Amino acid sequence: MALIVQKYGGSSLESAERIRNVAERIVATKKKGNDVVVVCSAMGDTTDELLDLASEVSPVPPARELDMLLTAGERISNALVAMAIDSLGAKAQSFTGSQAGVLTTERHGDARIVDVTPGRVREALDKGHICLVAGFQGVNKETRDVTTLGRGGSDTTAVALAAALNADVCEIYSDVDGVYTADPRIVPNAQKLDKISFEEMLELAAVGSKILVLRSVEYARACGVPMRVRSSYSNDPGTLVAGSMEDIPVEEVVLTGVATDKSEAKITVLGIPDTPGKAANVFRALADAEINIDMVLQNVSSLEDGTTDITFTCPRNDGPRAMELLRKLQRDGNWKNVLYDDQIGKVSLIGAGMKSHPGVTADFTEALRDANVNMELISTSEIRISVLIREEHLDKAARALHEKFGLGGDKVAKVYAGTGR
Amino acid sequence: MALIVQKYGGSSLESAERIRNVAERIVATKKKGNDVVVVCSAMGDTTDELLDLASEVSPVPPARELDMLLTAGERISNALVAMAIDSLGAKAQSFTGSQAGVLTTERHGDARIVDVTPGRVREALDKGHICLVAGFQGVNKETRDVTTLGRGGSDTTAVALAAALNADVCEIYSDVDGVYTADPRIVPNAQKLDKISFEEMLELAAVGSKILVLRSVEYARACGVPMRVRSSYSNDPGTLVAGSMEDIPVEEVVLTGVATDKSEAKITVLGIPDTPGKAANVFRALADAEINIDMVLQNVSSLEDGTTDITFTCPRNDGPRAMELLRKLQRDGNWKNVLYDDQIGKVSLIGAGMKSHPGVTADFTEALRDANVNMELISTSEIRISVLIREEHLDKAARALHEKFGLGGDKVAKVYAGTGR
Repeated sequence: MALIVQKYGGSSLESAERIRNVAERIVATKKKGNDVVVVCSAMGDTTDELLDLASEVSPVPPARELDMLLTAGERISNALVAMAIDSLGAKAQSFTGSQAGVLTTERHGDARIVDVTPGRVREALDKGHICLVAGFQGVNKETRDVTTLGRGGSDTTAVALAAALNADVCEIYSDVDGVYTADPRIVPNAQKLDKISFEEMLELAAVGSKILVLRSVEYARACGVPMRVRSSYSNDPGTLVAGSMEDIPVEEVVLTGVATDKSEAKITVLGIPDTPGKAANVFRALADAEINIDMVLQNVSSLEDGTTDITFTCPRNDGPRAMELLRKLQRDGNWKNVLYDDQIGKVSLIGAGMKSHPGVTADFTEALRDANVNMELISTSEIRISVLIREEHLDKAARALHEKFGLGGDKVAKVYAGTGR
Repeated sequence: MALIVQKYGGSSLESAERIRNVAERIVATKKKGNDVVVVCSAMGDTTDELLDLASEVSPVPPARELDMLLTAGERISNALVAMAIDSLGAKAQSFTGSQAGVLTTERHGDARIVDVTPGRVREALDKGHICLVAGFQGVNKETRDVTTLGRGGSDTTAVALAAALNADVCEIYSDVDGVYTADPRIVPNAQKLDKISFEEMLELAAVGSKILVLRSVEYARACGVPMRVRSSYSNDPGTLVAGSMEDIPVEEVVLTGVATDKSEAKITVLGIPDTPGKAANVFRALADAEINIDMVLQNVSSLEDGTTDITFTCPRNDGPRAMELLRKLQRDGNWKNVLYDDQIGKVSLIGAGMKSHPGVTADFTEALRDANVNMELISTSEIRISVLIREEHLDKAARALHEKFGLGGDKVAKVYAGTGR
């Protein structure tokens, strides 16, 4: 008998009919002799609808109250799933994040889990009940105020509960039936992976794959909780996310997949004095405004006037704010200009095989050359190469890389399995 | 400086615009130097929508999960009102029933408040914050499970909090601007009362006035919390519900109002043996099925066969269930027949003046005679006379009684102030 934690996303719960389907799956898992803990996101677009309501009553809703508001969504879906399970003749009990012992920091809207004390959940499991736990929410350990974990926080709730309960696996259900070698909407012969290591999944999540939330993978890796990405529409076993790439026998080590990302913008600061601390001013200002920067490039200094150019990428959503900030700094910093470009895309190749197989970078750049794609920026990690290119070339580049590294299968991927859930 | 508890009903909160209006009223109350605690019902039809969802996933939703589901409604409205208050520059903090210390019995769906320990609310008030408390909900003292207080429970929450915080007044806001001498839709010159005693209000609520929930008035009377019925659409001071009718000087004692009720059905058991215990069998069976009976009449026994007839009223909603039950008993009990009639109405006259003014019953019956209305059943309390008549005669009877006892004013009531909120 195993202990299985299942997490269902909002699209899997968007209607009464979908909720009944999910309940059947849960009861089937229980009937196989497993203990089952279920974490549900809010139904369909509930969270967005509540956010709309909030913006109608207040231009800047206070974070504490926003958390009180949004956590209602998961209470609703959890209670409904519990009812649906009950109507199938199984015993179910729903718990709020607080009741399930999900203790967090005090940062409303983006709290971190500091401890999980699932005493009540354990008790209910021991009675043979299926436990439903409201995802995305917790309670501030000090003030007992309700907190939320930020977008995608239900995945983190599921992993944290799985860790605290010493579960055998944490299954993440959505409308995607696994992790693919590429987005099948872009690369038709993309293949579903049976297994992927935590490190590779982390790199994938970091460069644009939206299948799993980065934080939940980090948590699962730190606690050694195996995750399984599955679809709530099929019985496909999905993709197992587990183990370290160090454990993969060398001869099996391969390249894992290609990821694409259109969510970033490129900013270039021209003619910034190339003296210590000048670049730091730029990044400190952005950090203070909580704007995450990704790829960074500093040109070789100009011999003529001792200035240089700095290029970096940041989320497009933050682009206008970043530019406003930098325009102000431009005057004080005596820079020549600040340029903004959001017509860019990022394509990345990920794979543990990169470590031990020389020549991957050469193959990578040749594949793009043959596809007539110009690279504007390159960044790498031990198991990843990413390049910034024109957005219009993104699909072409992904297909070229996927082909070059032999990631495709001989059949066209049947299911939608793209970015976004 | 006073401590004021305000309760807003669902129709007062049905849209973002209405929520902003309510927030302005709350902030204005605070700016006058008062401490303010606000209890909100769920927005508009939220509760009904959640109930519909529940019935879509389960034919008989378990009560514990139904409470978890329904309590989401008040969390949403409370958080939104807190945000709207915040956007007006005042400090607000929302609390769930549990956080506000509303401790209840374990009976899900119809729990009773056993204690209110509003430590966190008091703390927030001391910091100058406006406190929002989710109505209708509490927490089971033993299991820490979420409970609800039954329909109209938000009024009870407001009164219980007012009592626990020793508030000066508990204001109940809806779309009705006070308690009237009759339903102005039926009696156009009905007058708004400035004040009414608890006893009179209890009688009014018991005989069909839906302005205040009976339980909340009982609670307020027991704890001596003055209530004020007001409209969230006007600045009218409304009607004060306070004090005992014993405190009203005798020369001011008058008749208070006329109430009408179309929600009951009449059941008659014919030819039941007139021996001890036979009538008890009928009422025990109905009590076991949780069907409330109201007016009861037992005829004088027939000299011929020693049987009698019993007539009583019960809610129309429970009529079919009651009849099914009685049909079964008919066979065992050897009754002649059981008759059902839901074309009836009840008209009542209420007033502390009844005690000290003889002749009210005579005037009452004469008024109905003059209006050509036949009485089928009469029941009285110290300060009330109720009669059962044909439903089609209800409006005519109410107008005749209102006129006979001089309750009307010289102008037509301008606002809607009927039964139902």
